[in-house]
Amino acid sequence: MATQVKRHPERGRYDRETIDAILDDGFLCHLGFVAENQPYVIPTLHARVGDVLYLHGSPASRMLQTLGSGAPVCVTVTHLDGIVLAKSVFNHSVNYRSAVVLGTPRKVEGEEKVRALEAIVEHIAPGRWTEARQPSEKELKTTEVVAIALDEASAKIRTGPPIESPGDAELDVESGVIPIRLVRG
Amino acid sequence: MATQVKRHPERGRYDRETIDAILDDGFLCHLGFVAENQPYVIPTLHARVGDVLYLHGSPASRMLQTLGSGAPVCVTVTHLDGIVLAKSVFNHSVNYRSAVVLGTPRKVEGEEKVRALEAIVEHIAPGRWTEARQPSEKELKTTEVVAIALDEASAKIRTGPPIESPGDAELDVESGVIPIRLVRG
Repeated sequence: MATQVKRHPERGRYDRETIDAILDDGFLCHLGFVAENQPYVIPTLHARVGDVLYLHGSPASRMLQTLGSGAPVCVTVTHLDGIVLAKSVFNHSVNYRSAVVLGTPRKVEGEEKVRALEAIVEHIAPGRWTEARQPSEKELKTTEVVAIALDEASAKIRTGPPIESPGDAELDVESGVIPIRLVRG
Repeated sequence: MATQVKRHPERGRYDRETIDAILDDGFLCHLGFVAENQPYVIPTLHARVGDVLYLHGSPASRMLQTLGSGAPVCVTVTHLDGIVLAKSVFNHSVNYRSAVVLGTPRKVEGEEKVRALEAIVEHIAPGRWTEARQPSEKELKTTEVVAIALDEASAKIRTGPPIESPGDAELDVESGVIPIRLVRG
């Protein structure tokens, strides 16, 4: 996987179309931030609107307090697509798509905040923003929203069959890809 | 989700049985580390053996160079279990299980390294360590393994139906949980 940054530079992708597709294909992200030299990685929910990624949370949480401090963060979205079985244990791998966004969050207010929350709810459950009761002013005050620009983002993708080492092709070992997917319902 | 650390302290779990079950129920983790004040969150593969979490990677990667530097890291494993539809947009949520491990990686060598790689391969694809060709000395040299003790780990779990706000129960809006699961094959 991304442990192979330098071994597999061909997996790196930087075009926004690829990055956007990965960000949009799931609503779970992992947010990395630093507090007193300790990195934290917290699962949270995101939505992309144009050139911006929105996250939300409780103003009281360490996460949101850190997000508002002007410190850099990292947001990573990963989709597992398959288990790659090779003829040697060493060439076992996984197929995946991941997007990594680096940036400094900006606090979002007013109409943009409501639209960001709409985008997050619609990303998780399309259609629900209009079906369910709208947020009250009081509810809006108990959540905070931040925006991270997609200026510094990259993607990595591994796809396809196992890559076997020279000489392994002849081995009597089954190989191939077991697809993995997330199913709703 | 974990954005709600202080709003939902009841979601916090600290017993090892709960933490271990979350770590063992998937092989994808997100590793957080800091390089020059910038946090990075990288998807990678893990396996737990007893009180230790193992990760591997290329010695040339930024990730492994950072892991060997004595700096603290964070490893997070998250499983999405459902989409929680409430009668108000504000009470929409997701059901999930996540484990967060804080620690300083220790480089692993010799027999422990081989057993750690076996654990990682078996975690991804049970039975493959014995079925596929064993790693050569040369292959072993091109990967590095680190161990992180499970001394400082915690879990968060959200499960069950939506929690509705007072007055919302009467609203004519469908609510409930849409299960989500990862399917192989």
